[in-house]
Amino acid sequence: MVSAIAKWYAQASCAGDPGRVHSEGRAARFAIEEARESVATLLGTRPRQVVFTSGGTESVNAATWGAARHGPGRPIVLSAAEHSSARESSARLSQVEHVPVDSSGRIDPAEVEEIVEKCFAAGRLPALVHCQAANHEVGTLQPVDEVAEVCRRNGVLLHVDACAAAGHVPLDFEEMGADLVSVSSHKLGGPEGVGALLVRRGLRVEPLVVGGEQERARRAGLENVGGILGFGVAAESLAASGGIEKEASRARRQTERLREIATRVEDVELIGDAERRLPHILCLAIGGLEAEPVLLALDRAGIAAHSGSSCSSESLAPSPVLEAMGADPERSLRLSVGWSTTDADIDAFEEAFAPAIEQLRALRT
Amino acid sequence: MVSAIAKWYAQASCAGDPGRVHSEGRAARFAIEEARESVATLLGTRPRQVVFTSGGTESVNAATWGAARHGPGRPIVLSAAEHSSARESSARLSQVEHVPVDSSGRIDPAEVEEIVEKCFAAGRLPALVHCQAANHEVGTLQPVDEVAEVCRRNGVLLHVDACAAAGHVPLDFEEMGADLVSVSSHKLGGPEGVGALLVRRGLRVEPLVVGGEQERARRAGLENVGGILGFGVAAESLAASGGIEKEASRARRQTERLREIATRVEDVELIGDAERRLPHILCLAIGGLEAEPVLLALDRAGIAAHSGSSCSSESLAPSPVLEAMGADPERSLRLSVGWSTTDADIDAFEEAFAPAIEQLRALRT
Repeated sequence: MVSAIAKWYAQASCAGDPGRVHSEGRAARFAIEEARESVATLLGTRPRQVVFTSGGTESVNAATWGAARHGPGRPIVLSAAEHSSARESSARLSQVEHVPVDSSGRIDPAEVEEIVEKCFAAGRLPALVHCQAANHEVGTLQPVDEVAEVCRRNGVLLHVDACAAAGHVPLDFEEMGADLVSVSSHKLGGPEGVGALLVRRGLRVEPLVVGGEQERARRAGLENVGGILGFGVAAESLAASGGIEKEASRARRQTERLREIATRVEDVELIGDAERRLPHILCLAIGGLEAEPVLLALDRAGIAAHSGSSCSSESLAPSPVLEAMGADPERSLRLSVGWSTTDADIDAFEEAFAPAIEQLRALRT
Repeated sequence: MVSAIAKWYAQASCAGDPGRVHSEGRAARFAIEEARESVATLLGTRPRQVVFTSGGTESVNAATWGAARHGPGRPIVLSAAEHSSARESSARLSQVEHVPVDSSGRIDPAEVEEIVEKCFAAGRLPALVHCQAANHEVGTLQPVDEVAEVCRRNGVLLHVDACAAAGHVPLDFEEMGADLVSVSSHKLGGPEGVGALLVRRGLRVEPLVVGGEQERARRAGLENVGGILGFGVAAESLAASGGIEKEASRARRQTERLREIATRVEDVELIGDAERRLPHILCLAIGGLEAEPVLLALDRAGIAAHSGSSCSSESLAPSPVLEAMGADPERSLRLSVGWSTTDADIDAFEEAFAPAIEQLRALRT
């Protein structure tokens, strides 16, 4: 991916605008369309359903914006486990109806239907239902197919935030029955600052960013050519036969081992669903300790972990996702494994974790 | 710039999220803050006034959005010479009041004031005035300082679209008196898909993209680290002593020569202002010929040119900018010179232009 991006910048030193007639523009257009094909293949759809954006957060904002303009004055349905981009973009444009989550972070399709029917009875069919493919903090998979069925039955648009899931579990946009799907390049091994919004065939919604005909007039602004190219390379390598399954089985084996190592320590527990979860994410509740010193202790041992909310770690506000699940967000630790994680990294965690927790707990007493 | 981006991707193979506590995150944060400093220096402001975006189009959309939410129900003032991102983002959120342009594409600050006063008298002070630093199609410089004076006097927010101008003429955000300024990386030699919105100290406007605390909670979404880095390198090299002036004087010399060569041909004229214009852009009216065959003929000679509107060449709609100036957008040809343009390229144009025009005109008769 790195070398593909570097090669692109080296050959396209003149930065061809893909919207132009001239030859440099055509080379950029070709590179973008190749990447679109790879992303479409990975996600089970046609290239023209793929709209490139500046990332998952923009994609989610665009889905919310498009649906809110499509159904002005109508409510948006979502759970508190949705990413902040879905929660915040919805709350500022519409009245929000909340779906509860269980202690693993999962929603119940029957409850989604109840809320949709209640809104309909009140004369305001929802403009949109947001449903993650999988949660970004605890990894819990959502019952997307059943929620899609509810939405279809009731004539409500469905947006699936697949940023955490895409590239880690197989996804098929056409099968899924969603109207809009958001994905992020860096979450599946591509560069930061690029993503896509998948738009169901035949659906026209107003773009979030306007003022140009790029992306078939669905997202204005000169394309991030290098970023899109890297996204395409990452998608292509995952789409290659068995790519996702192979990665997923390695990731699951590694996170299972991490779980086993971590929960051996007293008062350390898994948050989320042990089975129906993303293979590469693990969220732990650590009794009696705040996350910050644990993160720093692990960082000193060369282990990068996170705490609290997934995309807002600059803010110190507790994660609403964990709160909605009834977990203590101040005590949570999120571990994820990636393409470059080796078994030796897991060994390093094993060596560092228990002593770090014990030492920190000793300081507290 | 290319090698800096490639180097970043090679070292940061794990794609450190700059919002994280761990070491990889800190390296990304450091790279972004260095770039922010370079962009701020180039544009005469403090780093914390710089909000990185996915490009000029997003910046303009964000400025419009922020102002419209700041002054809901109030009109937005702009001329038809503004970029489509300003025109379209404004028209969908607010009532738009149009400032006329003269035949060179310039607005008159006195007319801006008249419109602002008329709106105020009608009980609705404008939420925003858009004023380009320079036009993106014909290069005409706008009287930004005087428009800023009008806005300040009347207590109206001013957004300056400096996408076409930044890096080509000196700009000083603090001196300019604007509240919001949009810039684009690729227009000043950096990569595509990244830009910035400058926000005046003390001004708080609602972000266009929400759901994360990145960019001091002014633009959500994981940062395009590689793109921002490239933007920083381009800005730094321009900000280096005399960078802009040196480039501008070469560009002006080259476009003067292009103008001289082109207008030697019968019924070919300059569109825009011959003096108060960007040094690197030249717009020509070609009598009796549509732009498309001229573009293709020049492309065959290795010369990349554009026609019609700047950012919408995928659409075949005529440019509203040229229409507002009273020029014929179907007959326009836009030439621009860049950092890599040599005098030999101008020679190639000299060789190709007159014969191409003559040949195409001969085919018409």
